Amino acid sequence: MPSAADEAASPNVTIHGWIRTVRVQKHVAFVDISDGSIGVGMQCTMEPAKARSLHTGCSVRLSGTLVSSPGVEQKRELRVSECVVLGTVDPKTYPLHKARVSFDYLRQHPNIRSRSKSFGALWRTRNSATLAIQDFFQSQQFLQIHTPILTSNDCEGAGEAFRVVTNDFLKAMSEPRAPGAPPAPSEFFGHPVYLTVSGQLHAELVASALSRVYTFGPAFRAEPSDSTRHLAEFWMLEAEASFLTSLDDLMSLAEASIRSITDGTAARSADDLAFFAKWVDTTLPSRLDALTAPFARMTYTEAITVLSAADRTWTHPVRWGLPLQTEHERYLAEVHCRGPVFVTDYPTAQKPFYMLASSSSTPDRETVACFDLLVPGVGELVGGSLREHDVHRLETNLRRAGLDPVAYDWYLDLRRFGTVPHGGFGMGFERFLAYITGMANLKDLAVVPRWLGHCRY
Amino acid sequence: MPSAADEAASPNVTIHGWIRTVRVQKHVAFVDISDGSIGVGMQCTMEPAKARSLHTGCSVRLSGTLVSSPGVEQKRELRVSECVVLGTVDPKTYPLHKARVSFDYLRQHPNIRSRSKSFGALWRTRNSATLAIQDFFQSQQFLQIHTPILTSNDCEGAGEAFRVVTNDFLKAMSEPRAPGAPPAPSEFFGHPVYLTVSGQLHAELVASALSRVYTFGPAFRAEPSDSTRHLAEFWMLEAEASFLTSLDDLMSLAEASIRSITDGTAARSADDLAFFAKWVDTTLPSRLDALTAPFARMTYTEAITVLSAADRTWTHPVRWGLPLQTEHERYLAEVHCRGPVFVTDYPTAQKPFYMLASSSSTPDRETVACFDLLVPGVGELVGGSLREHDVHRLETNLRRAGLDPVAYDWYLDLRRFGTVPHGGFGMGFERFLAYITGMANLKDLAVVPRWLGHCRY
Repeated sequence: MPSAADEAASPNVTIHGWIRTVRVQKHVAFVDISDGSIGVGMQCTMEPAKARSLHTGCSVRLSGTLVSSPGVEQKRELRVSECVVLGTVDPKTYPLHKARVSFDYLRQHPNIRSRSKSFGALWRTRNSATLAIQDFFQSQQFLQIHTPILTSNDCEGAGEAFRVVTNDFLKAMSEPRAPGAPPAPSEFFGHPVYLTVSGQLHAELVASALSRVYTFGPAFRAEPSDSTRHLAEFWMLEAEASFLTSLDDLMSLAEASIRSITDGTAARSADDLAFFAKWVDTTLPSRLDALTAPFARMTYTEAITVLSAADRTWTHPVRWGLPLQTEHERYLAEVHCRGPVFVTDYPTAQKPFYMLASSSSTPDRETVACFDLLVPGVGELVGGSLREHDVHRLETNLRRAGLDPVAYDWYLDLRRFGTVPHGGFGMGFERFLAYITGMANLKDLAVVPRWLGHCRY
Repeated sequence: MPSAADEAASPNVTIHGWIRTVRVQKHVAFVDISDGSIGVGMQCTMEPAKARSLHTGCSVRLSGTLVSSPGVEQKRELRVSECVVLGTVDPKTYPLHKARVSFDYLRQHPNIRSRSKSFGALWRTRNSATLAIQDFFQSQQFLQIHTPILTSNDCEGAGEAFRVVTNDFLKAMSEPRAPGAPPAPSEFFGHPVYLTVSGQLHAELVASALSRVYTFGPAFRAEPSDSTRHLAEFWMLEAEASFLTSLDDLMSLAEASIRSITDGTAARSADDLAFFAKWVDTTLPSRLDALTAPFARMTYTEAITVLSAADRTWTHPVRWGLPLQTEHERYLAEVHCRGPVFVTDYPTAQKPFYMLASSSSTPDRETVACFDLLVPGVGELVGGSLREHDVHRLETNLRRAGLDPVAYDWYLDLRRFGTVPHGGFGMGFERFLAYITGMANLKDLAVVPRWLGHCRY
């Protein structure tokens, strides 16, 4: 759709779109239509008779001339000579109205909600952020790879992976079998297969040949939780860099990526972010400003000291060795640092097997060279670490975690053959979008969200 | 890694990489190393004593000065003053050797194969093609969306979808239950859920609000087939455009996209495509040239006429109403048209419920406004159609296909409320990569391939 703000007017135009509002006056009708390509609609004027059958949600083809507009909202408007209705709407059953409706209501109509101004703005912002990710990582000589969704390893070891089977297998499993009957039929892949919870181990595979890679794609968690913070399917950005030896360098890379992706998104979607700042979260501009200053950095041990000294009553105890809970993470980012903060060097016992020991690790306080990036309002946005690159220590870590080194033989090979120091990080894409739009519920940031009990189509 | 072809020399440099070859002579050792960022390695020279412990596959950090090289392969080489081995290799067990090995052999070592020249070139080309997809569709005002992987609909109706369950559900299903015992426990989503075979219906959802969208992500088929043409997990590009009324326009869009993505990939990965033309498929340049001419277009009915008149003995019968088999598709593209050909307007009975009837459809020969793009060597590369946008005819189509319109109520809503004419197409990404690299086996085009019986990690 030609932007109403464009200076170069074309006299005769045909436009397509969906009607947002119709206002019929005695001598003229005002019709606002949108094709979703930008947030601002096009104001159109026509004879009242032509607008009688038009309702919010109708699709139309309008022809006419662009003229200067006397209105304050737009510089130009379309004076319609021909109006063709492509698709009608029964205003009694159409789920969207021209009045504002709540996000709760829109979530009940996920197949239509993309027509609302907010969701149009969200999907355009999501598109911009996707491009900004590409721009940053390509500029840093990272290659995009596509790590697999189907996997037989559970990288995080949290046991919340979905299982993938065929209908035939499931049917055979569910049929009654007499004692002593032959075992269940073989699976499609010959063994249990899951949906990935992280592409990290596979990203390491390629990084140990091409040095710097990133993967941006779906990941899955079968968490039986219906909260504003949980999706069963979400998109994740994961980057992995070889020949990287310092956690500080890794944090600087993560920090630069957040800043660049935010700037790139803002540059492409300035109008849409202004929309969110006006209608969704008025603190958004100051929250985005907080990204321009250097992010704070503190160790887990320092964080425990800060939390212990805080003038707060904690619901969850604060003690070295215990995990940081949401209340602790929010305090660190929102109150203590008033902005993003990297918390580093967590206790080894809290973290997965693949992390490298910290240089500051001691026998009584074993820690790993990792970080969580905590941001106001969202909590953990990015997590990363240096990876254990010594094959023997990695085997020891696997055994300590109760995992079978044989199942990770392919991964141990990466250390057996020309191992290199390396590290990487992962960022939940919907969480990032929540941070830069102010939207509070992750279900509103996935195009078609899936969570406990919700996968209707 | 600084390219050996760079003119601007920096005198003192440190580089990282994996050793490709070591050649120790009496007074000097030649070591070729690569970090995977480009196809050409860096030739390094050092004292023979320094190179004694080096083998193919070792990872090293080398410091020295860049000097003009007397060799014909490179303009500059690194005269090494310091060589640090980061990761050793036992040459007896390292799966790669400096000699050429077959793709069959490399497929047995999928965790290490990315270190080979061919797979480095493939992943760099895959990265370039991913960017070229972005460039084309963004330039055409398409927004990238991320359609869901988890879905309860089977868009193509082929019944080859993987089922997604939780471990708890599977365990309960597999435990013996006495007759009359309570039914199996509820599923995570409350009903059966599958891995997507196509994002099309969800892309239509967003296109009916934002007009032009594309989705690029994984899709899955549980085809129990171990051929060079089957992957259980592959990437697919799908584009959907509203306000599009002509199949010719849709084909022109698909044709422009193929041409642009190919050109964009070639521009970014010229050296790697030259590598494939030299070592993998010498006909590659002529096959890529075939993309510059307009693609042929013929109807299915015309194709049947051509095939019937061909001086060939067909294994599969040729008759109006029967599907085109691989032998027919290859003949049309490779012999009859000698290049890409769109075959349009297939019999309705062969195609899914969502396709719009052709304008040329007659009661005795019902056809739909669709196309398959057939290309030499690969077969079907792209499939697309106009979509039925009338709610009543769409309901009739669903019933004829034996599908329950209630399950597609959300999709019918898109036609109930402001429906618009629209269409779209989908392209298998690995097939496209096969076409532009000459690689014959799709398993070699996925970073971590999955197929029947193969998902070890």
